Amino acid sequence: MKEIADKIKIVLVETSHPGNIGAAARAMKTMGLENLTLVQPKDYPCVEATARAAGADDVLANAAVVETLEEAIEDATYVLGTSARLRTLRWPGIDPRKAAQESVEAVTNGGSVALVFGRESSGLSNEELSLCHKLIHIPVNPDYSSLNLAAAVQVICYELRILLESDNQPVVVDDSGEPPASAGDMESFIQQLEQTLTHIDYLDPDNPRKSMPRLRRLFHRARMSRNEVSLLRGILKQIGKIT
Amino acid sequence: MKEIADKIKIVLVETSHPGNIGAAARAMKTMGLENLTLVQPKDYPCVEATARAAGADDVLANAAVVETLEEAIEDATYVLGTSARLRTLRWPGIDPRKAAQESVEAVTNGGSVALVFGRESSGLSNEELSLCHKLIHIPVNPDYSSLNLAAAVQVICYELRILLESDNQPVVVDDSGEPPASAGDMESFIQQLEQTLTHIDYLDPDNPRKSMPRLRRLFHRARMSRNEVSLLRGILKQIGKIT
Repeated sequence: MKEIADKIKIVLVETSHPGNIGAAARAMKTMGLENLTLVQPKDYPCVEATARAAGADDVLANAAVVETLEEAIEDATYVLGTSARLRTLRWPGIDPRKAAQESVEAVTNGGSVALVFGRESSGLSNEELSLCHKLIHIPVNPDYSSLNLAAAVQVICYELRILLESDNQPVVVDDSGEPPASAGDMESFIQQLEQTLTHIDYLDPDNPRKSMPRLRRLFHRARMSRNEVSLLRGILKQIGKIT
Repeated sequence: MKEIADKIKIVLVETSHPGNIGAAARAMKTMGLENLTLVQPKDYPCVEATARAAGADDVLANAAVVETLEEAIEDATYVLGTSARLRTLRWPGIDPRKAAQESVEAVTNGGSVALVFGRESSGLSNEELSLCHKLIHIPVNPDYSSLNLAAAVQVICYELRILLESDNQPVVVDDSGEPPASAGDMESFIQQLEQTLTHIDYLDPDNPRKSMPRLRRLFHRARMSRNEVSLLRGILKQIGKIT
C-alpha cells in the first residue's frame, strides 16, 4: 500500500518547536507515511528535531521546506486542514476516520492529498483554512483541548495506517493457533470434572447444586483448545490418582 | 461520560524519560482520561515531565506511584497490555478500536480497567504480559515500528474518546450479570492453583513446565466473575483437605 501512502503528504505550518517537527516525523513513519512539507518552520533544521525524530530522520532529511501554504499544497487534489474540535465550526468538518477514508479514496481515484496542521499556539488562520476542502475535527476533551501537534499527526496517521493495512487484516491473533476443542471433547471433560468433584466429596451426587452448570458455562466461555482440555484432564486424572 | 473515564486507568511501567510521562499525561487529558499510575518511573518527579504535560500537570499531581505492576492493577477487573504489533503473538491480541470497546464494556458491566504501557526500550516482560487479559496491538509500519510511548497512549486514548463521546456506546451485558473478578482476585486464585497442583504432585516445583502460564492464560480468557473465582477456590480447598 506504499503507492497510496506516497500520495499523501503531511504539511506543518509555521511550527514553533523543532521537537514537534521531529516527533511528527516519527509519528508519520511509524504509521508508514513519509512525505513531509514544512511551511516556514521557526527553527529548522535543528538538533532537537533530529533527536525527537529518532530513527525517522530520513523523513526530515527528505522534507520539503517552503515559504507558503499555497506552495506546499500546489500539487494536491484534496486538502484537509486540522483543528482540535470546538475551535472552528465554520468549515465543513469531518472526523479523523472519515478523513482517512476520503484521503485514500482521493488517491485511489488518481489524486493526491495534503493534510495540513497549523501552529502550536493558534492553529490555521482563516485564510489558510479557506485553502482546505474540509476541516478535520479531532475529538477532544472540551475542558482541555490542548492536543500536542505531533499527537494530532499521530492520530490522523493512525487512522490512515488502519486503511493502508486493511488488505492484510484481520489483525486479531488467536490465542494459541491451536485446534479448538470439539463439543465432544468438552463433554468428556465436563463429565470427568463432575466425577472427580464427586470423588473428592465436593459435589454431593444426590444434590449437585448449581456448581456443574456454572462450571460448564465458565469453561465454555473460555473457548478452549484441544490441548487445553488435555491439560485440565491431566490434572483431574492426577487428583483421582492420589485420592 | 466522566463516570466511565474515571474507571479506566493508564499504567506506565518503568518509564525512562520523564518527558514521556508528561506527554502521556497531556495525551490522556486531551482525551478526557485522568487516572495515571506509574510503576517505578526512572526519574520522577521531574521538571521535564511537568513541562511536557503542559496544562495537564494535575494528572501528574494526582498520579499514583507504585513499586510493582501487581499493585498498579490490583483493583482492575480487566487488564490490557500494549505492544507495537509484530512483537508478541503469544497473547490474545486485539486492535486499539476493539480494546476501547471492550474497556468501555467492562466498565459498564461494573468493572474497572487498566491499560498498561511498557518501557520505551523493551516494552513489557513476558511476566508482565501474563498479568494481562489481552494484548493491544497498535498497527505500525513493519519497517519502522518505533512508536513513541506518549504517541501510543495518544492512540489508545483517542479510540476511547470516540466512544466516550458517542451516544451509541456498546451496551453489552455480561452473561452472568455478576461483578467481575479483579486482578488481585485472579492472582490469589492462580497462586492457590499452583500450590494445589504442586501439593498433588502434578507440578514439580523445580520444573513447573509450561502448565502454569497456559492455565493462567486460559482462566484470564474466561473473564471470570468474583463468584466463579470463589467456586474454583472452593474446589481447590476441598482438594487440599482430602489429600
